[in-house]
Order: sequence, then structure tokens, then C-alpha cells
Amino acid sequence: MNKIHLENKNSITELTSSNSLNQLDILKTQLKTNLISILPEHGHALHEAANFHFKECGKMLRGTTSLAIASALNLNHKTAIHWALAVELMHNASLVHDDICDEDSQRRHNPTIFATYGAPLAICFGDWLVAKSFEHAALASKECRGDTSNVITLLAKVMAKLSSGQAREFSGGPVLDWTGYDNVVNGKTVPLLAASVEGPLLLAEKYEYFDDIRRCVESLGLGYQISNDILDALGKDGSAEPFNDLYRKAPNAVSITFRDTLKNGHRLEFDNWMIGKTHSNKIDWASQITKNGAIKNCVKQLQEYLECSRHHRSKLPNELQQALLPLVTYLEREATKMCSSTVENGKSSFD
Amino acid sequence: MNKIHLENKNSITELTSSNSLNQLDILKTQLKTNLISILPEHGHALHEAANFHFKECGKMLRGTTSLAIASALNLNHKTAIHWALAVELMHNASLVHDDICDEDSQRRHNPTIFATYGAPLAICFGDWLVAKSFEHAALASKECRGDTSNVITLLAKVMAKLSSGQAREFSGGPVLDWTGYDNVVNGKTVPLLAASVEGPLLLAEKYEYFDDIRRCVESLGLGYQISNDILDALGKDGSAEPFNDLYRKAPNAVSITFRDTLKNGHRLEFDNWMIGKTHSNKIDWASQITKNGAIKNCVKQLQEYLECSRHHRSKLPNELQQALLPLVTYLEREATKMCSSTVENGKSSFD
Repeated sequence: MNKIHLENKNSITELTSSNSLNQLDILKTQLKTNLISILPEHGHALHEAANFHFKECGKMLRGTTSLAIASALNLNHKTAIHWALAVELMHNASLVHDDICDEDSQRRHNPTIFATYGAPLAICFGDWLVAKSFEHAALASKECRGDTSNVITLLAKVMAKLSSGQAREFSGGPVLDWTGYDNVVNGKTVPLLAASVEGPLLLAEKYEYFDDIRRCVESLGLGYQISNDILDALGKDGSAEPFNDLYRKAPNAVSITFRDTLKNGHRLEFDNWMIGKTHSNKIDWASQITKNGAIKNCVKQLQEYLECSRHHRSKLPNELQQALLPLVTYLEREATKMCSSTVENGKSSFD
Repeated sequence: MNKIHLENKNSITELTSSNSLNQLDILKTQLKTNLISILPEHGHALHEAANFHFKECGKMLRGTTSLAIASALNLNHKTAIHWALAVELMHNASLVHDDICDEDSQRRHNPTIFATYGAPLAICFGDWLVAKSFEHAALASKECRGDTSNVITLLAKVMAKLSSGQAREFSGGPVLDWTGYDNVVNGKTVPLLAASVEGPLLLAEKYEYFDDIRRCVESLGLGYQISNDILDALGKDGSAEPFNDLYRKAPNAVSITFRDTLKNGHRLEFDNWMIGKTHSNKIDWASQITKNGAIKNCVKQLQEYLECSRHHRSKLPNELQQALLPLVTYLEREATKMCSSTVENGKSSFD
């Protein structure tokens, strides 16, 4: 049996605002060590796929945020690690299954499990990750003083939202406006980001911060999805080409921002192309979007969401505000990077 | 929100050996009502797929067995229903995902979700079923007096075994002998059947019956898988044609029983065909298996497992023995049906 590596609790308790990105790296290394230690051993049917997938662990934004919040709440470190693993494993499971659904061949600058091992093994590997996610959620709940089933219910409801959200992409029409976009993001990015902070709150029985932290994370989540959408439009998200979402007619904040600027017939033309009524590719929408300034406007939208998140965050106790800093700092750094490459004069309000 | 239908507890407490199949039907109806009530509502992206899939609920062997055991243990009925839903939902999730992996177009005499809605929606629907399975396991554990995380851990470990077992089918060579077959079944049929009875035992904190009931169910599980394999070979499992497993080179007890009777070169020829070294179809293995008596011998093998299961069952308290009767009776009825259509003179030891 694999064992969870338990490191000195103090190592995650001293988060400071001045050094939050370094702290994020420390938490990430801690979490990665634990994650690698629970992967299938040599000889297991999923050993190779698991090692291939976790060669690059990604940003681990959910897991590290969860660890930072747990630390701020003085949650038992073992419990904190198990919950952080639960959210990271669930996040990776959704990536592996989504890559099959979207037939994506690249992720994190590497070939996907789907592209490398085929859909059947990718389905099994995703399922295995889900199973391990719940296994670690159960281990986290073992230490919980209150109603231990709460965190399992939370994780299960997140998974139901993620799978329904993903299904909506195939069964509904294209997402053309912000209402539809908010719905998509609330069934895609937000639930698991929210669970990263809600899990430790439930485990530590700190129910009083629930509303503020949820609103803070919802705005952050929207901002985060928009930043991902901008990266997709720029071709900087690790996939093979820019405007991947646009060509798949998948929901993307840049496309919606672009559509907002279109008038009458031009907008109808775009809508018909998105709905798939027009099969001709007379208009090169990607280059129109690039020229139109939609990416720059999308960055502004992102700034507004981050501002809104800051407002809600300011109502939280100081320790929780600090614990959210790695997530916020990461997002702001991403936004700054995007601003410098997209906003005129390379200047941004985040500087 | 959907509500769980709670029926009179007494209705599942009076299982009698003489009438166990009727009781199985009563439990099945009860469970089906609850299952239907939790499916996605109209307008949900998975509403149509869920209703299509559960138009035919199958035998619900795991859920009804779980209810019968729970009743014998005097477990709270609400808890019993939640756990039965958890195992049924997990079972259906594994069917939906397995059908994508195996590219199966038919199940329960209906087109599969994969064949009807495509792989992406089938992946999402399977994931949604998993999420609901854990949601109901968490609801079951809410009422539990002991360590409530136990049943979540049980369900998570079952799911990990099922996904690893399914992955083994693509990553390993063909299964040619009984050792390999036992391994496959212990990663396929047994875990969830075992969880059906182990869940109520954990929830009622009756740890003393664990070993006997596990051995009893393991033998039953092996018997059950063999009976399914025989149905596959006969083309009576709801799929389009007989010997589906054989043509897919998938593990099947009938193929192994057949291989046991082959000598030297003939066995090598079969092995090479199974491994895929020989691409010629000179030999019609399906008709050789039919002539050779492998199906009849497989029925004998099935009888032995059922005998072994009976032996372990005899050590259990009377109420648990009775609670296992629906499962046993179903299997014996299936075996009897198979015997009458496969064993000479239509006579079987189960009559």
C-alpha cells in the first residue's frame, strides 16, 4: 500500500502576502509528492497512463488553495492533504474525460491520455482518478468532528455539476451571451474551485464564512475561466493552435465579447455560423476577433471580476484573506501577462 | 429537489425461502421507484439519456440483495434505500462506460447510450451516475452510528477495482486459464456484489459476519459471471449475436473450459488466435466450442461454485441466509434455464 507523506505542519502555516507565489510553490511541491505516492504501482494496468499523465502536474491551483485555506483554519494537516488530493484528483479526472469528449490531443504541452492510449483506457483512468478522489475525501472526513458525510456530499455534487456541465456542451446550442456563459462556468470552473475552499471550511466546521468565500471564489472562478478563454484565443493554453474553442463552437468569453460589438446583420451572420446553419467559411472570424479588440475588452472584463472578488474577500478574516492570496496572485499574474501581450502600450492596471 | 419514496418498512422484512423470487420482485419495484425519482428532470442535459437508459432497469440484483440484507439486519429503511441506490447507480455507471470501451451497441435488448448518443454524452452520463452513487452513499452514511467514512471507502475501493479491471482488458494479453479468469472476475463482478452485502453490514456494525459472507458472495460472484459468460456464448445476454466475448478475445469461462479440453498443437493454435498472432480465420472456433460440450461443462463449473457458496452461506445466521436467497434463487433459476437448454435430456441438478 502507498503511504501519504506527512510533512511538518509548520511548513504551510506561514503564508505571507509578500511571498505568496513562493508559498504556492511550496504547497505545490508538497501536494505533488503526495499525489505521486498514491499512483498505481508497476504492473498495474493503469501504471503507465498515470505516470504519463502526471509527468506534468499542471498548476495544482485547487489543491494548493485548499491547503492554504486548511492551514489558515488550523485544520489537521493529514486531513488537509487528503482533501487537497481529493480536489486535485477530481480535477484531473474531469480533464482526462473532457479530453476524450472534445477529442483534444494536447494538454499541458504534452499529448493527452486520449491521444496516447485511446478512449477506452482514458475512460478507465478517469474513473480510477474519481475513485481515488472519493477515497481521499473519505480519509479527510475520518478526522472531521461534525457531520462527516458533508464533504462527500460536496464532492459528489461538484462531480454531478461538472458532468452535467460537460454534457450541456453536446446537447444544447452554442453559448452566445453572458447569461449562458455564467451558467456554463458555474457548471465547469467554479464548482471545484469553490469545493477547494468549502471542503476545509466544512471539515473545520467554520460555517460562518461560507457566503462571503463562495462569492469571492465565484468571481475568481469567472475571472479564471475568462483568463483561460483568452489563453485559448491566443493559442497559449498548451493546445496546438489558437481559437480552439471558436472552431469547436465551444463557449468562450472572447467570442461573446466579440459578438457584443457586432450589429444587426453582422451579428446574425456570426450567430448562424456558431449555430452551424452557415457552412461556408467566407468570413475568417478568428482574424476579425483579433482585429476587433475583443481580447483587450475581455481582459477588462477579467479585471472587473477580480475587483468584485477582492471586494468579497475584504469581508473575510485576515487569515482567510491571506490564504486566498496564492490563488488571487496566480490569477493576477496571468492577467498581467495577458495584459502586457494584448493591451496597448503593454501597460495594465495590475502592474 | 427529488424526494426518496419511503415505503412501509415491513414490506421488505418478511422474506421467506419459499417465496424469495416474489420478494425479489417486490424489492425491485421499490428500488426502481426510488431510482426513477432521482433521475435528471426535463430540461437537464442528461434527462433524455437517463430516461432512455432506465427504460429497462435490468435485474437490479445488487440493489435488491442489498435491501434484503439490510432488512435482515434491521437497518433503518431510509439508509437501506440509499445504499441500494448507491450500488445500483455505480453498477449502471460501469455498464455505460464499459459499453463505450467495448463499443457495445446493445444492452438489455435495447441500444446502448454509447450507440444512441455517442461516446461524449455516454462518458458524461456515466460520470453523473457515479456522482449520484456517492451522493446516496453519503446519505446512507449519515445515519450510521460507527465510522461513517467506511462505506464511502468501500464504494471508492470498489470503483477503483472496477476501473482497473476494465483497464486490464485493454492493456494485458488474453485470459486463457482459470487463475487469470478469477483475477478478472475479482476485479469485475465480485467487488460490487460484495459491496451490496458489505455496505449494510458496515452500516449496521455487524462486523462478525464479514468473512463468511464475503466467501459466500465471492463464489456466487464467480458463478454469476460464469452464467453471464454462458449467456454471452448462447447469444442470450441481450447483445446482437452469440460468442460476442470470443470474437472480442475477451475473458469468458466458456472459452477457458473449451481450451482446457484442447491438446498440444490444437491448444497452441487456439492460443495464437486469441493472442492475435494468427489472423486467418481458418478454424471456426465458435462452432467448435458449441460441438465440444464446453457450455455443458461450464454449467457444471457453475454448479460447483454455487455448491461452495451454499457451504459458506450455511455458516451464517438464519436471517442473513434468507436474505441472500433472492440472489441465490435468481442464479439458480438462471442456471436451471441454461441447463435445460444446454445439458443433455434437459435435466439439471437444480430441478
